[in-house]
Amino acid sequence: AADIDLAVIAGDGIGPEVVAEGLKVLEAVTAGSGTKVSSTAYDLGATRWNATGETLPHSVLDELRGHDAILLGAIGDPSVPSGVLERGILLPLRFALDHFVNLRPAKLYPGVESPLAIERVAPDGIDFVVVREGTEGPYVGNGGSLRAGTPHEIATEVSVNTRFGVERVVREAFARAQARPRRHLTLVHKHNVLTHAGHLWRRTVDEVGAEFPDVETAYQHVDAATIFLVTDPGRFDVIVTDNLFGDIITDIAAAIAGGIGLAASGNINPTGESPSMFEPVHGSAPDIAGQGVADPTATILSVAMLLEHLGRTDEAARVEAAVAADLAQRGSAARTTSAIGDAVAARLS
Amino acid sequence: AADIDLAVIAGDGIGPEVVAEGLKVLEAVTAGSGTKVSSTAYDLGATRWNATGETLPHSVLDELRGHDAILLGAIGDPSVPSGVLERGILLPLRFALDHFVNLRPAKLYPGVESPLAIERVAPDGIDFVVVREGTEGPYVGNGGSLRAGTPHEIATEVSVNTRFGVERVVREAFARAQARPRRHLTLVHKHNVLTHAGHLWRRTVDEVGAEFPDVETAYQHVDAATIFLVTDPGRFDVIVTDNLFGDIITDIAAAIAGGIGLAASGNINPTGESPSMFEPVHGSAPDIAGQGVADPTATILSVAMLLEHLGRTDEAARVEAAVAADLAQRGSAARTTSAIGDAVAARLS
Ligand SMILES: CC(C)[C@H](C(=O)O)[C@@H](O)C(=O)O
Ligand SMILES: CC(C)[C@H](C(=O)O)[C@@H](O)C(=O)O
Repeated sequence: AADIDLAVIAGDGIGPEVVAEGLKVLEAVTAGSGTKVSSTAYDLGATRWNATGETLPHSVLDELRGHDAILLGAIGDPSVPSGVLERGILLPLRFALDHFVNLRPAKLYPGVESPLAIERVAPDGIDFVVVREGTEGPYVGNGGSLRAGTPHEIATEVSVNTRFGVERVVREAFARAQARPRRHLTLVHKHNVLTHAGHLWRRTVDEVGAEFPDVETAYQHVDAATIFLVTDPGRFDVIVTDNLFGDIITDIAAAIAGGIGLAASGNINPTGESPSMFEPVHGSAPDIAGQGVADPTATILSVAMLLEHLGRTDEAARVEAAVAADLAQRGSAARTTSAIGDAVAARLS
Repeated sequence: AADIDLAVIAGDGIGPEVVAEGLKVLEAVTAGSGTKVSSTAYDLGATRWNATGETLPHSVLDELRGHDAILLGAIGDPSVPSGVLERGILLPLRFALDHFVNLRPAKLYPGVESPLAIERVAPDGIDFVVVREGTEGPYVGNGGSLRAGTPHEIATEVSVNTRFGVERVVREAFARAQARPRRHLTLVHKHNVLTHAGHLWRRTVDEVGAEFPDVETAYQHVDAATIFLVTDPGRFDVIVTDNLFGDIITDIAAAIAGGIGLAASGNINPTGESPSMFEPVHGSAPDIAGQGVADPTATILSVAMLLEHLGRTDEAARVEAAVAADLAQRGSAARTTSAIGDAVAARLS
């Protein structure tokens, strides 16, 4: 097998702790395969910003482009004003590397407790994936303030949606739906209020859907979708939605599938023109950082997604199976971050 | 007591059925008080649109302004293209009558089943209220399409937020929080991404908060707020948020508190310059219309909110208590729409 040349952005808070376990599992699953895993660390995040005022220097971005994939821990710290690192690192990475597919699976593994009354609302379990658009919508940063700080202040935020941008993510979502047993795709939007963007999404799903006659489609307004996510999540297979709606519903999805300690994500550029980036959905959790108690499972599952993206399907499946086996017998006893990483790695040896 | 001069928009689907029960309960609770309840019916909705192409004629809007309050059932039917009635009736009513406070309580009444594992995630129950802004944000209709239908299509949606609009709803939310035992207010936004609008909201909460030193405040990004709504809803007391975030989280709130069959709402103009409008959060449910099986509870609770708004606090409390008592012994046996209305009305006689 080809070697793996990773860029690693461990980041802030619990980032370095969970990334270490992700890399441990990556080593374990590739051991003996003849694959050499090399990883280059990039220090982006609160520490760098506090020391130098830098967020994502051009030179770093250029270097990142040269790797096969990026593994990111978490970025964010109370010492940095809200928005600085999000709009200085996380979002620029997604935009510059054109990560138009933000992929977020939601699967309730056996042994994992959901806040839902599962026997009643999802007797057949939860297993869907959200394809969130990653480079458009209200995330484009096209907003402004007029007369800020006065009683006459006006602040605007512009959601920008293009046929090009919507079509490519919708096509990807259909392809993913087609590859799953249920072949069902739900568009989530709010086209009765956001008529222009909403109709663009709807028309695009209708038109691209003609290329995928074997995929059944459904539509839900975002507000109704959140109801079904807590009353009947089993109805979902693949969901495609815009950047902001995707941000919201993937957090609900994570919550109902056992919490953000388990939720993995991929910021994917399916064209291969730039490296894709894999990260846990959770943040840097500064309150528990450095204590060795963070759950690295979301990062380990993100490594599985990374392997899948690199075409190493078998290794991806083995990592996921090892995590599933670990979760199944985890129980409620507290384990350290590295103990969980060790346990998963041990199942792969 | 003063008389009550109501405008009634029964609307489509189950609207007329649930409104009839709301009026029945209103009659029952005011009987013997010397209050005369008069109601004028306005036929707005799908039937009128299908027959005449009219949505909300100016003359009707003018007449509505003359009433003390408006009771609305539900608007919407599959025969009308998505958006026509929302943007032709529901939203114009909120905007023209300046309903800047969209009030949506979420309370889990004893005897009501939640999709959450309540004993585990909310042992002390659910009892909060969302103050959703009703006249700004992404709902203003300031969007457009360029090159629609071509591969170069661009669709935009503009969220417009003003200090005037944010301040008045934030002040109302603080006042409501101050009047509740816990005195806690959570701002929900996404200021790390939607920086201009988000910072306007945040600054306004900070500044108006100085007038309410006894109200504790908190902030949650909308995505994190949805997690807490399903893992720890007991933490919320009053939530204030923008129009779109409010649309989404009030549906989650309704779902966790027993479903939209129970969720009431008020579109309120606290200045009294125009009548406020009360409506169930649910839609017209055309699939069950005309069968007498719709649950009128949300409409009856909306009537309680209407009474509260008109300063008839005691009657409002009695209606809510009657609903609570009915819910507590409702069990799972199916009852007709009118049987539920009769049962609640009987408790008030
Ligand atoms: C940190 C923030 C910018 C980010 C987002 O809003 O996309 C996060 O919530 C996520 O979902 O990855
Ligand atoms: C019908 C629709 C326009 C409306 C909204 O989005 O506000 C509804 O979802 C609501 O919450 O009252």
